[in-house]
Amino acid sequence: MRVIGIDPGLRNMGWGVIEVAGSKIRHLANGTCRTATGSGSLAQRLLDLHGQLSAVFATHQPSHAAVEQTFVNKDGAATLKLGQARAIALLVPAQAGIEIGEYAPNAVKKTVVGVGHAAKQQIDHMVRLQFPGVQIHSPDSADALAIALCHAHHARSSGRLAAAVARAQG
Amino acid sequence: MRVIGIDPGLRNMGWGVIEVAGSKIRHLANGTCRTATGSGSLAQRLLDLHGQLSAVFATHQPSHAAVEQTFVNKDGAATLKLGQARAIALLVPAQAGIEIGEYAPNAVKKTVVGVGHAAKQQIDHMVRLQFPGVQIHSPDSADALAIALCHAHHARSSGRLAAAVARAQG
Repeated sequence: MRVIGIDPGLRNMGWGVIEVAGSKIRHLANGTCRTATGSGSLAQRLLDLHGQLSAVFATHQPSHAAVEQTFVNKDGAATLKLGQARAIALLVPAQAGIEIGEYAPNAVKKTVVGVGHAAKQQIDHMVRLQFPGVQIHSPDSADALAIALCHAHHARSSGRLAAAVARAQG
Repeated sequence: MRVIGIDPGLRNMGWGVIEVAGSKIRHLANGTCRTATGSGSLAQRLLDLHGQLSAVFATHQPSHAAVEQTFVNKDGAATLKLGQARAIALLVPAQAGIEIGEYAPNAVKKTVVGVGHAAKQQIDHMVRLQFPGVQIHSPDSADALAIALCHAHHARSSGRLAAAVARAQG
């Protein structure tokens, strides 16, 4: 399967695509969809993000998507902005008709670093270790690759579980 | 001009289309895009909303859109949900390439009822007075018609202002 991880954000929307075949995981591409603060109305920026992310889907043809669950904080305006960006991160894979996994930030950290409360730099470090020599476009695309890895690991373990259940029943 | 007003919401997204020609305002259509709570993942619901609202645009071909500004409240999860719905309400007119006006709830009330702190029933009442005999689909579509009226009034007064400035300068 080909998994795209998406780290939603209005200014910086990170994405990373990996190819998963059995136990092999290969990096395909990563990048950041950006809309500058001064680059027009909110509607224009959402349109721009939608266009950029749709182009990534058209180019890399992922079969699965994984999106980070949003952290609701006390800053209502920030939460609203993030919600708007997240809608685009969910809409584009839904329009492509592919399955979407959603993972809490702590689940992503736990999969990639081993603990749920890892610092952002640790994620970045582990992603670089996992994909040696790969150019990581931005901290947001590193996060997106971590989200894609999290999805791959979860899919693999639920696959193993299903296989074990099938064996037990067979 | 043909104005669509949109009252964003994930479960109920109200819309109303009016035709404005000089001082004449005519109701064209109103309705509600709905996605049930149990009708699938958030991504599926956003896709569904996007499809329903895009169909409204294709049918009624508005030339201008007006969207209510979102009220940020203390409930972070509700704000996030509203932000996601609002992204769709902004994306669809942006994809249609039309201008979008955004109005605070108080500005809408002030235009339609005359005061900024009117109750929801008053809005509904004034919208029904403005469009006698029109079937109002839901409280959300009444709000949407109020938002469209607000946009029409603002466009008209800015038009008058521009004309007055032109006369004064001429």
